[in-house]
Amino acid sequence: MRRGKVWIVGAGPGDPELITVKGLRVLREADVVVYDRLVHPALLREARSGAELIYVGKAPGRHTMTQDEINRLLVEKALEGKRVVRLKGGDPYVFGRGEEECAYVLEHGVDCEVVPGVTSATAVPAYAGIPVTSRWMASSFAVVTGMEAAGKERPRVDYARIASAVDTVVVLMGVSRLEYIASRMAEARGPETPAALIEKGTLPEQRVVVSTLGGIARAAREAGVEPPAVLVVGDVVKLRDRLWRLR
Amino acid sequence: MRRGKVWIVGAGPGDPELITVKGLRVLREADVVVYDRLVHPALLREARSGAELIYVGKAPGRHTMTQDEINRLLVEKALEGKRVVRLKGGDPYVFGRGEEECAYVLEHGVDCEVVPGVTSATAVPAYAGIPVTSRWMASSFAVVTGMEAAGKERPRVDYARIASAVDTVVVLMGVSRLEYIASRMAEARGPETPAALIEKGTLPEQRVVVSTLGGIARAAREAGVEPPAVLVVGDVVKLRDRLWRLR
Repeated sequence: MRRGKVWIVGAGPGDPELITVKGLRVLREADVVVYDRLVHPALLREARSGAELIYVGKAPGRHTMTQDEINRLLVEKALEGKRVVRLKGGDPYVFGRGEEECAYVLEHGVDCEVVPGVTSATAVPAYAGIPVTSRWMASSFAVVTGMEAAGKERPRVDYARIASAVDTVVVLMGVSRLEYIASRMAEARGPETPAALIEKGTLPEQRVVVSTLGGIARAAREAGVEPPAVLVVGDVVKLRDRLWRLR
Repeated sequence: MRRGKVWIVGAGPGDPELITVKGLRVLREADVVVYDRLVHPALLREARSGAELIYVGKAPGRHTMTQDEINRLLVEKALEGKRVVRLKGGDPYVFGRGEEECAYVLEHGVDCEVVPGVTSATAVPAYAGIPVTSRWMASSFAVVTGMEAAGKERPRVDYARIASAVDTVVVLMGVSRLEYIASRMAEARGPETPAALIEKGTLPEQRVVVSTLGGIARAAREAGVEPPAVLVVGDVVKLRDRLWRLR
């Protein structure tokens, strides 16, 4: 029997049309699709009839499968000779643990290929009228997680230092720690620094809360913003007035 | 006559299959395609027969059209009632000047929509086996231009400061200033910090030079690396040994 293969595919930030052509092609050819919570249902309908769809999503606090179980599942299915697509929200190598899964698969003698996706870090702000760079006001941006890996000896992420080093900061998965993150960045950049929080970005339900570092936590609470949401900090937030329109 | 519209579309990092499904759809529907130097020829062949293809690429030092001329062209064609696709390498809002073009178009009363693309900043490293984040070794990354806008009063980009604030640094368009950029980052992170330079990333001609901040400029010179190339700095470069394989 031929040996299968694993493709680690980025589904993009939400809008199902933001998957890549390559991602859609391998999805349509897959025998098995192992998918996450934030993958759009329209993409699952692209799988061929007869393909096995396996949900392994992680809701906050509720894991369907552990990471070890997911890793083993990918290898097991590939060793059965299957074409396995591991479909993940955003880009698999931007806080997606795609690198862990790909390394595990390769180390077990199975071929693995990554298919990059459009990351929420740039596309979610773009759909809200906020470019992460701008020729005149932002020559650099940083992307940082709002949720660090549990079990790390000491926190790595110094939000104040990052905010003082780059023009634009994008924080993914930061809603539950928004107050802490915003206040740390305000120490470095000042509470008047523009900030926007985008909920369900690139989807029809997208909501945008525009404020400042000093005001964003309260504004988000009042608006009842829930994950997934992307925080953008910096002067580029002001460009939204020029770039955004009702669609 | 109906008024046209402009779509600012990211073509992705090189591999023509890394354009999004949405980007390909609007490209196929376009009456006019205004495209840059780094757009893959295979994508231009997706335009319908009869579509007008206009090259406005900027080779270093040789501009086919100024930015003002490009802006005016987009508006002019849209006001003729045309569906205009502005096709740009990478993501239009990541050092792509897409935000300038979109703002200009909107300010001239023409509808404009951005279609995000897969950015070279994450996908070029991914194709070379380097994830910009990793659960255990990189919780943040910065993306920075190696070429600042000419005419700025003072340089904004402090490479040393950025390198000291985040785990991974990605520099786009940095080949011509590689020695300066690497030495500034070496001051902050040490000359032994892993660094990789990826030429023509995601294309069959892709070449990867792996070294350290102290050695990368010389290694790039010896290998004869030319633009476009992406520099990645940080411990994640070491993951290449686990993630990369011949394809």
